[in-house]
Amino acid sequence: MRTFAHPDQMRHTPRFFLVRGAVRPNYEVPERAGALLSALHRLGLGPAEPAPAPRAALETVHAPDYLDFLAGAAAAWDALPDRGPEVVANVHPTPEVLAQGGRPPESVVGRAGWYMADAACPIGPGTWEAARAAAGCALAAAAEAAEGRSAYALCRPPGHHAYAARAGGHCYLNNAALAVEALRRAGAARVATLDVDSHHGNGTQGLFWQRGDVLTVSVHADPNRYYPWFVGHPEERGAGAGEGCNLNLPLPIGTGDAGWLAAIEAGIAAIRAFRADALVVSLGFDASEHEPLAALRVTAEGFARAGAAIRAIGLPAAIIQEGGYNVGLIGTLLERFLTGWGGA
Amino acid sequence: MRTFAHPDQMRHTPRFFLVRGAVRPNYEVPERAGALLSALHRLGLGPAEPAPAPRAALETVHAPDYLDFLAGAAAAWDALPDRGPEVVANVHPTPEVLAQGGRPPESVVGRAGWYMADAACPIGPGTWEAARAAAGCALAAAAEAAEGRSAYALCRPPGHHAYAARAGGHCYLNNAALAVEALRRAGAARVATLDVDSHHGNGTQGLFWQRGDVLTVSVHADPNRYYPWFVGHPEERGAGAGEGCNLNLPLPIGTGDAGWLAAIEAGIAAIRAFRADALVVSLGFDASEHEPLAALRVTAEGFARAGAAIRAIGLPAAIIQEGGYNVGLIGTLLERFLTGWGGA
Repeated sequence: MRTFAHPDQMRHTPRFFLVRGAVRPNYEVPERAGALLSALHRLGLGPAEPAPAPRAALETVHAPDYLDFLAGAAAAWDALPDRGPEVVANVHPTPEVLAQGGRPPESVVGRAGWYMADAACPIGPGTWEAARAAAGCALAAAAEAAEGRSAYALCRPPGHHAYAARAGGHCYLNNAALAVEALRRAGAARVATLDVDSHHGNGTQGLFWQRGDVLTVSVHADPNRYYPWFVGHPEERGAGAGEGCNLNLPLPIGTGDAGWLAAIEAGIAAIRAFRADALVVSLGFDASEHEPLAALRVTAEGFARAGAAIRAIGLPAAIIQEGGYNVGLIGTLLERFLTGWGGA
Repeated sequence: MRTFAHPDQMRHTPRFFLVRGAVRPNYEVPERAGALLSALHRLGLGPAEPAPAPRAALETVHAPDYLDFLAGAAAAWDALPDRGPEVVANVHPTPEVLAQGGRPPESVVGRAGWYMADAACPIGPGTWEAARAAAGCALAAAAEAAEGRSAYALCRPPGHHAYAARAGGHCYLNNAALAVEALRRAGAARVATLDVDSHHGNGTQGLFWQRGDVLTVSVHADPNRYYPWFVGHPEERGAGAGEGCNLNLPLPIGTGDAGWLAAIEAGIAAIRAFRADALVVSLGFDASEHEPLAALRVTAEGFARAGAAIRAIGLPAAIIQEGGYNVGLIGTLLERFLTGWGGA
């Protein structure tokens, strides 16, 4: 199996994070990429280094004004008086704002709020380069999958919470959605996503909400008690041409291997029924029993079995790294998943 | 002129605030109420102490589920492990969430995000009592205005950024909107609001967006460069039955007395043309040249002239306190405004 990573992904070094009203160190740290990279080398799957995603590819998913914001925010922020060390917003456009004809302001302080859904996606000097590098890895994995070969993209920052024009939850560019669009353009008529990160893939769901050619499936902890809080429920099935093309499989807090793997099997059944031509896997390790937030209780063996089960669908897959924040463990979990897959 | 205040308003003691990505002390402090109260006593206008707003009155403006959240948030928060000292949200429902059928979650952590538009409205143990006490003052002032006598309500926390089901920008209950509804129910067929706080009155605008019986006018610093960032532009004119019943008069950063008073006169002309039966004034002092943020440059004399100009409309007015954060100065500015009004 080919794998892809890029050293620029280390240049994103977020600090700010709010947990239950207290400021904490952000745990989406560069060391995550280092841990996953080490695992790839242990497996003998040292990565290729693809080019950062070109603008045209990014625009298959993201709005031009949002890309301009991401590219320029850190420099504009740097010129502010009495600023904090990175771009963090404290106000966001709620639905009332749109009902009143709201629009992005000129000031970068207000624009940051407009283009962010939460305070968990700080932007620093290296964020844009890191996000573009991660997106480039996703595109490279999609290109492999388009040729019938599954591949792994070590994407950092992750992507599945990013919408067309909004960052959120450590995510800036939706790497999985970029892989979907690349596969569609390479000839796959129908593409499925399977998101096994412990958080609902709300960005991916939102991006393909009205699309009948893309099935989005997410297995995650109950949003009633876990980020992203507001969506991820079973009754969200898509709309318009996409009605019935979104499947949410939320799990109670504390669910272990059996429940998690059963939900993945239910997702796999939906993907088979959809008759997808290619698969994009959003692979997070934060369902692990040893994660900082520990919403789910999946073991290392569970990840190995997930790899085997998803491989058994028989579709070429672009495996996209999402979350997983236990730096000492995620390398092992990647090894187990890829070994289970049979790609190692 | 009768005035109204309540000691419970001191029980709201917010701490958290984010300014340009840096955590700072929240400046919507209890001392604000003390400074304004002192000014009332110097004027010989010591306040009456009305009852906190009853639930039925609050429901003329706010959604029941939102009121339940405000009433119970601090206690629910208190039961969380590793919580910060007050309810502060880090994720908010952007328009995508509604498009996907999102809804409030069970956890108070997620509910806080749902019911808040930003991180500038922390909820502590005394917030609900303080907000209800402030709303009670607004209702008492409205009752006076309904009898043809202008009155002043020392409202803290302020209210004009609060929507039907969303807190924001130091505001929880929209005191001005509650006064409007009280005046309508007391028989005023048409009510106008004039908001001279330096921030756009986005909550008040949003609440009456589709109402033809309420004219909302706001004079404020350009939202392109100032909170609330996304709305407050001249092209926002209301919708449906309310089309043409919203007037925004944004001013460039740095505008002084002449520009500010000219905008107030333009607002007054609109209120006269609307043939309102009663007036609600959202009175902020943060347009002062000596404010911490200093978006506008209004002098003490400017506030005196504003009081005289608004009084000259000839309508009975409920004067509702909004912002103004220079604790050492706002008492003087209230004295000047009320003296200009002729109410002292």
